[in-house]
Amino acid sequence: MILGAGFAGLWALRRLAQVPVDVLLIDRQNYHTFLPLLYQVAAAELEPEEIAYPVRSVLRTMPNAQFLMAEVRHIDLAARRVEVADRAVPYDFLVVALGSITHFYGVPGAAEHAFPLKTLDHGVDLRSHILTCFERAVHEPDTVRRRRALAFAIVGGGPTGVEFAGALAELIHGPLTKDYPSLDIREIRVVLVEALDSLLPGLPQRLRDYALSRLRSMGVQVLLQSPVTRVTADSLHLRDGAVVLTETVVWTAGVRGDPLAQAWGLPAGRGGRVTVRPSLQSPGYAEVYVVGDLANVEAESHPLPMIAPVAIQQGEAAAQNILRQVRGATPVPFRYRDRGTMVAIGRNAAVAEFRGRAFTGFSAWVLWLSVHLFNLIGFRNRLLVLINWAWDYFFFERAVRLIVPSEAAKARPDLLDATP
Amino acid sequence: MILGAGFAGLWALRRLAQVPVDVLLIDRQNYHTFLPLLYQVAAAELEPEEIAYPVRSVLRTMPNAQFLMAEVRHIDLAARRVEVADRAVPYDFLVVALGSITHFYGVPGAAEHAFPLKTLDHGVDLRSHILTCFERAVHEPDTVRRRRALAFAIVGGGPTGVEFAGALAELIHGPLTKDYPSLDIREIRVVLVEALDSLLPGLPQRLRDYALSRLRSMGVQVLLQSPVTRVTADSLHLRDGAVVLTETVVWTAGVRGDPLAQAWGLPAGRGGRVTVRPSLQSPGYAEVYVVGDLANVEAESHPLPMIAPVAIQQGEAAAQNILRQVRGATPVPFRYRDRGTMVAIGRNAAVAEFRGRAFTGFSAWVLWLSVHLFNLIGFRNRLLVLINWAWDYFFFERAVRLIVPSEAAKARPDLLDATP
Repeated sequence: MILGAGFAGLWALRRLAQVPVDVLLIDRQNYHTFLPLLYQVAAAELEPEEIAYPVRSVLRTMPNAQFLMAEVRHIDLAARRVEVADRAVPYDFLVVALGSITHFYGVPGAAEHAFPLKTLDHGVDLRSHILTCFERAVHEPDTVRRRRALAFAIVGGGPTGVEFAGALAELIHGPLTKDYPSLDIREIRVVLVEALDSLLPGLPQRLRDYALSRLRSMGVQVLLQSPVTRVTADSLHLRDGAVVLTETVVWTAGVRGDPLAQAWGLPAGRGGRVTVRPSLQSPGYAEVYVVGDLANVEAESHPLPMIAPVAIQQGEAAAQNILRQVRGATPVPFRYRDRGTMVAIGRNAAVAEFRGRAFTGFSAWVLWLSVHLFNLIGFRNRLLVLINWAWDYFFFERAVRLIVPSEAAKARPDLLDATP
Repeated sequence: MILGAGFAGLWALRRLAQVPVDVLLIDRQNYHTFLPLLYQVAAAELEPEEIAYPVRSVLRTMPNAQFLMAEVRHIDLAARRVEVADRAVPYDFLVVALGSITHFYGVPGAAEHAFPLKTLDHGVDLRSHILTCFERAVHEPDTVRRRRALAFAIVGGGPTGVEFAGALAELIHGPLTKDYPSLDIREIRVVLVEALDSLLPGLPQRLRDYALSRLRSMGVQVLLQSPVTRVTADSLHLRDGAVVLTETVVWTAGVRGDPLAQAWGLPAGRGGRVTVRPSLQSPGYAEVYVVGDLANVEAESHPLPMIAPVAIQQGEAAAQNILRQVRGATPVPFRYRDRGTMVAIGRNAAVAEFRGRAFTGFSAWVLWLSVHLFNLIGFRNRLLVLINWAWDYFFFERAVRLIVPSEAAKARPDLLDATP
């Protein structure tokens, strides 16, 4: 049984589909979300459907696999049962691939007021909120309120923060200035806030410098060494006392494992993740594997990052190890093959690290486009994403500018009302 | 000032954009919805974004037009002011194009349990609900409950009911039977219920017969002369005592004008619509025009239907009459030019009436496709819809199968829970 249809769960499923075992996949959604492009949904570049893929389309070619759409309520490790809603489903082997949740590090107000970016709903909510800010600003006579509605703060200078800041700057300076010709563009601010002294920590210095200067040339105000101390409905407070007046704080500063895993008895490791053996097995239960963001696996005494390539390789490795166990063999340790890192910044601009070599600019951007397009599941999604990207590239235009507030957004009526 | 960015409001805007007057368009959404294709969103054929078009994209070419995203709370006809949220906006001329709402005819339970199909949210909710029924049915051991989850009733044999019944039958018998191979297809029911003795009343007999036999050959159970007496969460009751056990009742039986218009003092006409002069002016206020679904206009002693062509022509006519008034001339009566009716039933199947001639089958279907594609606003939307239609046509496949419950759906937790 596999819990979670993210990268780790889906790739485990794919590997298990090739052999004669029965597989049940459980997820609360009926689709897989291609999270590396979620920020483009928030930036009105892609439609949510284009980065989602129905689980049952994957299952069609797998006669040995079943799907159950349900929320996992409990794992009874001793009884080898997973509990959902009104039933308990037994398993022989279990792959726990439930992913991560946004980590607010206990910053006051962050959980209440900042926008996370972890699900399709988050992406659509953030897009709707940003566009609503513009709709309000255009009819707002008060300068302070108008500037506040037009200030957008992104917390976290990692890949997601950098990519979203760049995409948002391009959205604003391209399509939105055309949509709102009466607004003074100098009143619009995009602020990227990072606690450490550099963007993209972990990447080579040349790439970090490139990302910083590129974002600044796109009009993004980058504040380094600026830990966030507080978030309110209309402000962002930094440790040095500076206050950014804004109604939009996007939180990309961190993710952590879901605390539910610990509640079910899986051992807690670093960052809310679950401690596993090198084989990805849970220490106490040889039939339970934990993979993806939820698993705390170290390589060279550093925890592996919570990114798609790690999840994919771990999902496949867990499936292989289960097959070894089924055959009576011993599971082997997981070894991560680092295939490099890529971060898109904007039009013709990206940074990429690949086998110790660093790329910037157009070549890195083409590499980024190709790899993401290639990794999207489903030919149709690839085609539609390509059309949207081409549309944006050649016409400097975003097609997806609908304000479609979801349930979560409606819980914040203060921010939704289009008339101030 | 124009209230409503539907067909009537948008076409009035387009006409007024060509002359030197200031225009303010108010709508609670920031997009226009192409309602004739909404049923395809509900049938998982099109993505919601593909039938929506941002209002500000229309406004870009109109320097004399402004847009305000807000809900109209009140029209003060005497003071010539429209009230939204916290402000009142004065007008010289007003075009009221606020459309219609679903009419349940007081059938007990219908408003609570039936699914309307009037907004993008409705379309997405209905799609999510239908797919959730399948997700539940596949894990439901009880035959009665499983059959109930797999029964889909559509109330209303007009164009929307016929089009949706056909699209749903094709969705089920194509993609969904592939997605749920373990379900017995004989347990799935699509029932179309009509109070009168014929589908598509008003169309020539040959077309009505064709629609009926075509739907039946697609597996749709058509019940004529079957007025609905009651709707519950899991059943649909007909006048002859028959009960259809179903958790999905789609209500396409009627629309009516929004009662708010009467509350604001606009005179009530037939079907909850507003009585207007032949010039589309409100009887009491020469500067107020009412157009589209909300206006009760009679031609040959029949009220004009609530369809897009009527709304478009009335929007343009009201704009022309306002320009006449601005120039000091007298408004002229509106005259509707009937350009025919078309109803799609399914693959290669449609009916069309055009200048007294009746078409069925492939030629009517090609005509339907062309006219709808041509009338979609925005080249990009046309391209994406064409891709989706081609995908469906050649691969017998629907790409959009995401369950994305909106706020409305979440208010019905009984129906949402994926595990029965």
